[in-house]
Amino acid sequence: MLTQAQVEQFHTEGWLFLPETFTDEEIAVLRDEAEQIYRVQRPEVWREKSGAPRTAFAAHLYNEAFGLLGRHPRMIRPVEQLFDEQVYMHQYKINAKASFTGDVWQWHQDYGTWARDDGMPEPRAMNIAVFLDEVMPINGPLMLVPRSHTQGVLAADHDLTTTSYPLWTLDEATVTRLVQQGGIVTPTGKPGGLLLFHGNLVHGSAPNITPYPRKIVYLTLNAVSNYIRTPTRADWIAHRDFTPIEPVADDALLRYAQRYKQAAE
Amino acid sequence: MLTQAQVEQFHTEGWLFLPETFTDEEIAVLRDEAEQIYRVQRPEVWREKSGAPRTAFAAHLYNEAFGLLGRHPRMIRPVEQLFDEQVYMHQYKINAKASFTGDVWQWHQDYGTWARDDGMPEPRAMNIAVFLDEVMPINGPLMLVPRSHTQGVLAADHDLTTTSYPLWTLDEATVTRLVQQGGIVTPTGKPGGLLLFHGNLVHGSAPNITPYPRKIVYLTLNAVSNYIRTPTRADWIAHRDFTPIEPVADDALLRYAQRYKQAAE
Repeated sequence: MLTQAQVEQFHTEGWLFLPETFTDEEIAVLRDEAEQIYRVQRPEVWREKSGAPRTAFAAHLYNEAFGLLGRHPRMIRPVEQLFDEQVYMHQYKINAKASFTGDVWQWHQDYGTWARDDGMPEPRAMNIAVFLDEVMPINGPLMLVPRSHTQGVLAADHDLTTTSYPLWTLDEATVTRLVQQGGIVTPTGKPGGLLLFHGNLVHGSAPNITPYPRKIVYLTLNAVSNYIRTPTRADWIAHRDFTPIEPVADDALLRYAQRYKQAAE
Repeated sequence: MLTQAQVEQFHTEGWLFLPETFTDEEIAVLRDEAEQIYRVQRPEVWREKSGAPRTAFAAHLYNEAFGLLGRHPRMIRPVEQLFDEQVYMHQYKINAKASFTGDVWQWHQDYGTWARDDGMPEPRAMNIAVFLDEVMPINGPLMLVPRSHTQGVLAADHDLTTTSYPLWTLDEATVTRLVQQGGIVTPTGKPGGLLLFHGNLVHGSAPNITPYPRKIVYLTLNAVSNYIRTPTRADWIAHRDFTPIEPVADDALLRYAQRYKQAAE
């Protein structure tokens, strides 16, 4: 459970970072499995113009380890607590930000896309992310604009050209104004760190030109009553299964990791 | 003059950073003049694909403030000291790394370009750079690979497509190997910081997607005996005037800044 101070920081600043929430043992198996997923050619794995992986969708539906992460109480309970309601999985992504070729994510609000493309009524969904690699200042960390979530849904343009991923992006004047007010923060740290941010928080990330990959898993959890009304995207991008998530045991991923390790030995 | 410890750090690590070497007053005038230069359409001002300025060449030849910087003892003396010889101006660039659109500089060694394109005999030239804006972890700081200067000239490919600037760039396997050995450092700090690095030091910088511009002036100073033999680039890129630089007084730029400020009031 989040403390009262953490809940307040989330509401005021729009984000919350909990370092080292998962152990090295839990993360190692997810990192291995992510690399295997990226090697497969399937519609859920989107690639950069270079061919490097950009994001893998819906891995909780076809991979056991990511399935357990998608029902992990350390992911589900904080979001239930903030929304005071059960949640379902709206979207599930493993973003690669590959070494050398991981491309930009332009400045955007997530809820802008969920509202426009998926018909989500309210910003009662949010991303909760786990670092699979160390996130450093130099390997394309997520950049957040604190307090920008108080601005509602901002005007945006549908960027279909910059990268292989269509995104509703904000203009430079808007970002400049919000950064003048709130600055920019870049939560960084070891694998296993957990980051929550409001669906209307403005964020982006620069390309990664270093040899250090920067994989992050994003669960988009939506309050059950806020299910999407008019989806336009594939159902493995914007899910139509609105069943409330029942969390697994807190050690379920650890036990999976231990079995996985034994099997590999 | 550099201390013995500084000289040793340069030889061992391949770089040296001297924070706040120029004052705010000295830097403010250079920043103003740089912005004016970028607004002019002239062959010396190269632009990103977006139209934003990428670099302005040879401003010491057509701008008085940058002319004074190009003969400033705080720029010239450290390089003379390291080479134990007088130097001339081989190249002079004001790199913009503009807010939102400043593009990547792929991993490269400067001397690789000076040798291949300009016929420079030895790596007895180097960049000495001054920050005109604050350089932060998030606005595309220069990334250096410490100790990579000990590797000599590495094999490189001529990248004519990634950006508007042709560059001899290193492959991913080479960069990965050197970073495993030396890591990556990103000198950051206030305007007025001074950075020297060896002509063979591997470096690059990521795009800048923040609202914070990141202008840096690079003087490439070459030992007079090491003048270029077979130039192929325009003479405002790779200069043919091999006259040793005679430094101005240490307060010359400050006095110019004070006159400039008075004239503006």
